[in-house]
Amino acid sequence: MSDKEREDFLRVAGPAREAAALLAPLPRSAKDAALHAIADALIARSPEIVKANEIDVARARENGTSEYMIDRLSLDEVRIAAIAAAVRQIAQLPDPVGEVVRGGTLPNGLELRQLRVPLGVIGIIYEGRPNVTVDAAALCLKSGNATLLRGSSSAYDSNTALVGVMQEALARTEVPADAVQLVPGTSRESVKHLMRARGLVDVLIPRGGASLINSVVEESTVPVIETGVGNCAVYVDAAADLDTAVAILVNAKTQRPSVCNAAETVLVHAGIAADFLPRALDVLRAKGVTVHGDERVRAYGADVVAATEDDYLAEYLSLDIAARVVDSLDEAVEHIRRYGSRHTEAIVTTSQQAARRFVALVDSAAVMVNASTRFTDGEEFGFGAEIGISTQKLHARGPMGLPELTSTKYVVTGEGHLR
Amino acid sequence: MSDKEREDFLRVAGPAREAAALLAPLPRSAKDAALHAIADALIARSPEIVKANEIDVARARENGTSEYMIDRLSLDEVRIAAIAAAVRQIAQLPDPVGEVVRGGTLPNGLELRQLRVPLGVIGIIYEGRPNVTVDAAALCLKSGNATLLRGSSSAYDSNTALVGVMQEALARTEVPADAVQLVPGTSRESVKHLMRARGLVDVLIPRGGASLINSVVEESTVPVIETGVGNCAVYVDAAADLDTAVAILVNAKTQRPSVCNAAETVLVHAGIAADFLPRALDVLRAKGVTVHGDERVRAYGADVVAATEDDYLAEYLSLDIAARVVDSLDEAVEHIRRYGSRHTEAIVTTSQQAARRFVALVDSAAVMVNASTRFTDGEEFGFGAEIGISTQKLHARGPMGLPELTSTKYVVTGEGHLR
Repeated sequence: MSDKEREDFLRVAGPAREAAALLAPLPRSAKDAALHAIADALIARSPEIVKANEIDVARARENGTSEYMIDRLSLDEVRIAAIAAAVRQIAQLPDPVGEVVRGGTLPNGLELRQLRVPLGVIGIIYEGRPNVTVDAAALCLKSGNATLLRGSSSAYDSNTALVGVMQEALARTEVPADAVQLVPGTSRESVKHLMRARGLVDVLIPRGGASLINSVVEESTVPVIETGVGNCAVYVDAAADLDTAVAILVNAKTQRPSVCNAAETVLVHAGIAADFLPRALDVLRAKGVTVHGDERVRAYGADVVAATEDDYLAEYLSLDIAARVVDSLDEAVEHIRRYGSRHTEAIVTTSQQAARRFVALVDSAAVMVNASTRFTDGEEFGFGAEIGISTQKLHARGPMGLPELTSTKYVVTGEGHLR
Repeated sequence: MSDKEREDFLRVAGPAREAAALLAPLPRSAKDAALHAIADALIARSPEIVKANEIDVARARENGTSEYMIDRLSLDEVRIAAIAAAVRQIAQLPDPVGEVVRGGTLPNGLELRQLRVPLGVIGIIYEGRPNVTVDAAALCLKSGNATLLRGSSSAYDSNTALVGVMQEALARTEVPADAVQLVPGTSRESVKHLMRARGLVDVLIPRGGASLINSVVEESTVPVIETGVGNCAVYVDAAADLDTAVAILVNAKTQRPSVCNAAETVLVHAGIAADFLPRALDVLRAKGVTVHGDERVRAYGADVVAATEDDYLAEYLSLDIAARVVDSLDEAVEHIRRYGSRHTEAIVTTSQQAARRFVALVDSAAVMVNASTRFTDGEEFGFGAEIGISTQKLHARGPMGLPELTSTKYVVTGEGHLR
């Protein structure tokens, strides 16, 4: 870690801290006006954003990046318009800051209120998609927080252009331009300054794959909110309705396999396996899914690949699924406890008792009863937007909307009260 | 870190994890019965607890420990009865687990509920007082969590006896005895296993001085809740009522100087300094308080010691206070931002406008208006009990009661809902 890199980091982190103090007490109207100014500027300056993005895309092609990743990286005027529209949508959401979470008058007459306040400075460490740059900054701004953005080096030119446009837009509003900052540098070392910036940064939110998230958790002295690793299971109970079970499994696995709330494992009660598995395997096969099953699953399909422990642990994010026959609901719960990532699990059952037991015993951010795992999502939950899905227990768990980007403060009012 | 120490740690951490899974779904009645069983056993077996404590006290005397610290370490039957009474009081508090924090029916008919659930396994790292052993275990148990206790080596025999009594009491209840565990070992190294036990331990709460808390924050990969460091300020506004200001300052400084919510700094508006400071210095002097003031404060008292930057940063926990004259409310806020620990600050003023501005700009866990800083406390806030006072922004901020020892889980119920 060179001194130069540290200086570069402090050159953005210091002003972000100052900006956070100015931003925190601003009323909703000032923040919404700033968000609309950002949206306007993104539209007006989309040609230059596209030009910067072309540099990233050309570099990615030179490096032999896959077409899938290049698609995620690419921006055009249509995509920029969608990003701007998302910013305007965030402006329309209620402001969480100032909400009274708890309040009342104490027996001694003191008036106690617990209010939502911004967290302060939020660091976002993320991967390829440049739309995250704007989306994260807008969510943080709406909730009164300054943002330090550390995107992928592959999107550096795009991110530089996007942050430049946002800062210039903010300079014409009541929100300080320094409230949105790109962390300089593209080296693996330079991100360490962000992870060790306790006191300057209030929370880090890594968004990306398991290895990114693990390295941030391991190295950071700043509090971290872990997001997004999803090894989700669908449990088909003995008392499941067969049509419902097949439909939920197929939806959870195939509707969008690359996302964290897609199913990666199916656990089938032995009592229904003979009815369920032949049908389920047929439909999964038709959808192009490779099933990695234990011995008892393989008895129902010659094309089922033998599963290993690694399959039970895998977040495939592809058209693969691990499958296992269990002798009881409790065995399913035990499998989930041992191999799952505690993101989302689903039970398909007509039994109220089974549903109740599964909900009580499964320790995941979200538990679905007769619904697809794909519903674990801020938009689906009605939050209007989400910054990620927390898979940790501290502070926030599950989809994180604007209230999850706040802390609280107690305000106690008396008339000379003493102890 | 020896393999032996690691094995010793896993021998308690593994069973605690298993116990947490069994404890989490238990109803309130089972947990309350277990708490009363613990209280009964503490009373019945207080002679052997006292005997174990005598070993700690004798060792402390040999080591030349101060009488103040020996008093904090000492247990007798009266103190044990008070500890047992506190456990019974925790049994009487409402159970936070299962509370629906948010809920409703989504437009597509899915029923969404966000429920409070236990955090899982909570590690408590603390210093001399053995009552914390029982208090922390009881609060964690009531909120459905297993506890890994790591007290001071100075209280090791007392803690071993207390945990033994609690475990034997639990063995006759529905709560698994393994839900309360003492982390073996007394070396500085052995605590590292607890701090690096990500996946086995869900949260660490260090309770103690600044150096303990800093070392836990620096070294832990388990999420940490910082507690208790309090460099609290009282700001006497230009529009303060003089009697109120003197009374609040004296109460905040002298009513119990050794605690985190005692005042360590007084900031006086220049417009009221000539009226306020002579009176305040007289009363503080009479109470035995040493004032460490800037030049403008020293003009009012020959016995005011010259303040340094270190005084502004100090958490004295003694009959000392830093004092400074400021030219505006904003200068007071700036001082607090620069030197404070964001625990509790108070303003004394009759001006509604000044109170509103101070509350909006001061970024502390608690802000008092015309009340002593000493009110930042779980009991005073009506929480019935507290495990500590969080000075961080993530998860919990300010006094932490039982709800702060929980996470949440989303339960989503449908009838075959697909995306």
